[in-house]
Amino acid sequence: MTDPILLTPGPLTTRLETRRAMLRDWGSRDPAFIALTAELRARLLAVAQGEATHACVPLQGSGTFIVEATLATLLRPADRLLVLVNGAYGERIATIARRMGRAVDVLRWPEDRPVDPGRVAEALGGDPRLTHVALVHCETTTGLLNPLAGVAAVVAQAGRHLLLDAMSSFGAIGTDLRAVPVAAVMASSNKCLEGVPGIGFALIERRMLAAAESVSPSVSLDLHAQWRGFEQDGQWRFTPPVQVVAALVEALRQLESEGGPAARLARYGENCRVLVAGMRRLGFDLYLEEALQAPIIATFRMPEARPLRFASFYDALAARGFLIYPGKLTQAETFRIGCIGAIDRGDIARLLTAVEAVLGEVAAA
Amino acid sequence: MTDPILLTPGPLTTRLETRRAMLRDWGSRDPAFIALTAELRARLLAVAQGEATHACVPLQGSGTFIVEATLATLLRPADRLLVLVNGAYGERIATIARRMGRAVDVLRWPEDRPVDPGRVAEALGGDPRLTHVALVHCETTTGLLNPLAGVAAVVAQAGRHLLLDAMSSFGAIGTDLRAVPVAAVMASSNKCLEGVPGIGFALIERRMLAAAESVSPSVSLDLHAQWRGFEQDGQWRFTPPVQVVAALVEALRQLESEGGPAARLARYGENCRVLVAGMRRLGFDLYLEEALQAPIIATFRMPEARPLRFASFYDALAARGFLIYPGKLTQAETFRIGCIGAIDRGDIARLLTAVEAVLGEVAAA
Repeated sequence: MTDPILLTPGPLTTRLETRRAMLRDWGSRDPAFIALTAELRARLLAVAQGEATHACVPLQGSGTFIVEATLATLLRPADRLLVLVNGAYGERIATIARRMGRAVDVLRWPEDRPVDPGRVAEALGGDPRLTHVALVHCETTTGLLNPLAGVAAVVAQAGRHLLLDAMSSFGAIGTDLRAVPVAAVMASSNKCLEGVPGIGFALIERRMLAAAESVSPSVSLDLHAQWRGFEQDGQWRFTPPVQVVAALVEALRQLESEGGPAARLARYGENCRVLVAGMRRLGFDLYLEEALQAPIIATFRMPEARPLRFASFYDALAARGFLIYPGKLTQAETFRIGCIGAIDRGDIARLLTAVEAVLGEVAAA
Repeated sequence: MTDPILLTPGPLTTRLETRRAMLRDWGSRDPAFIALTAELRARLLAVAQGEATHACVPLQGSGTFIVEATLATLLRPADRLLVLVNGAYGERIATIARRMGRAVDVLRWPEDRPVDPGRVAEALGGDPRLTHVALVHCETTTGLLNPLAGVAAVVAQAGRHLLLDAMSSFGAIGTDLRAVPVAAVMASSNKCLEGVPGIGFALIERRMLAAAESVSPSVSLDLHAQWRGFEQDGQWRFTPPVQVVAALVEALRQLESEGGPAARLARYGENCRVLVAGMRRLGFDLYLEEALQAPIIATFRMPEARPLRFASFYDALAARGFLIYPGKLTQAETFRIGCIGAIDRGDIARLLTAVEAVLGEVAAA
């Protein structure tokens, strides 16, 4: 049996070496695993050049867990969060903060428009109660890349703190913490880092983290306590998914071998260019303007001339070994195809051949 | 390189087939993974005969995450929790509930004494504000087995709800939900089920779960919403650790092949008897009275005649391929040795040979 190629926002296709790193049992309090955790934390920090300023706090669970834990740890009852929303993941940040009882304001843009730093500056200028700003770097809803540098600059100028959901960009689209002022970067193991799912992590300004003792209303999602645990004895407070950690360390070593985030971005960029050009040739238009599309996951419109039911299209491609992803938009009939994971332009070319064959079958039917 | 044998409360030694189940990448929204999740939920419910009354809600994260999520989902602001404490895991339940702002009372026993149902009945009779009771089935702090049936009977008689932390008993020490009234059973993937760490799960009375909409102050730790997600489309709300799920399903199939929890308990019981008899012969006394010791993890006293530093003892055994576990008691110099995982009496016999050799070296030094 050949495994299918996953063209999704994650979990995605990983290298066999990454999965083989899960074949060992580790004692979670053994020195060998403590060393592995230290390597994990150091490598994650290095990906974003955060060594001098930030601390890396990994956490069990999915990306949503690390987002919630970061908000729970850094937002105090008197704080007020401004969430910049142009997709489902921005909305989720607002929902999480409201559910935990924190004050939240939202600025919204249409799903096909980037966040506008000018409007953010205006909002911050108009409301001194706002203490933190949350931005989604690459909105997986559409694949749109938001202007991190511009937003970070206006947030810093206004003296507020930026919390960056870098879930689907970290490891490919650079975030240089020496150059871009970000209080906390949140991401997970199973996207551009090409590990398997099961842990998330936040890179948090050390001063801010050190001041956050007992702020979190949740014991499990308390990143201050989690960090103290690592600093004290190198161990996770609560049982870590040891095999997932081992796979992520292996994946980070491979990221370095590949040439780091710049080389990875180049490979994903090529995947995306081949994909978009090929799909266009087959009659599928990109949902976003091409300049806004990150090479992470691309959203395509169903062609009006030859509309396909998504479920049939999915099944026909799955039968040929490719798993694509449904759309998440309400106002347009779309689907998504990921460009990330241990795949290259050859895989994309094979996908395009499969799409063409499926279209031929539909036309013949 | 031969992997060490893990004699810990988990993560522990698993079968190679379980780890090999992690070699595949899964699309988390693909029908194949939806079927795997359905099998997981059905098998977990069947282990405790909960099919007619309970629902199984798996959750990303460690055992502490599922305990917190269960409390967050089931305890309302006006509720009051009585926690029965005779070890660190009972204390942790009280800490978690207090941190989320719930009212908590604690009944305490010494770490070497079981919870006494008579005192629980008395406490419930004396305070009508108490709505829920939390019990740790097997206290991993010492390895003590608390009297589940007795506690469940008095809680039911008083018309309150029992929340059972069955973390280190589930899969070996039977919990028949048809016979024992328990509102919620919480456990994790990496103990007696012999999966790898990364998910926990709760079996919750369906009526109670259905009434718990929007109770949780946490989005990530909301088991009502998590359950609704599974019921609606069979999918996890947020990215699941797909390889951990696949490993747990494989481990549950093996549990069935082995003969279910009764057969597993028999194997662990033999491991424990061989261990305790052999360690006693070598001069190490059990910390607990033997009748209170569950065959899960055994706590031994350091011999007063020939005391060893734990760190040296650990390292010497690790060099021989066995990882033991530190003690968690404040009032006695102890260490722990697990009896669970994919190990048998032969592994325990080899451990005893290694312990004897280490003692010989110390005597000669």
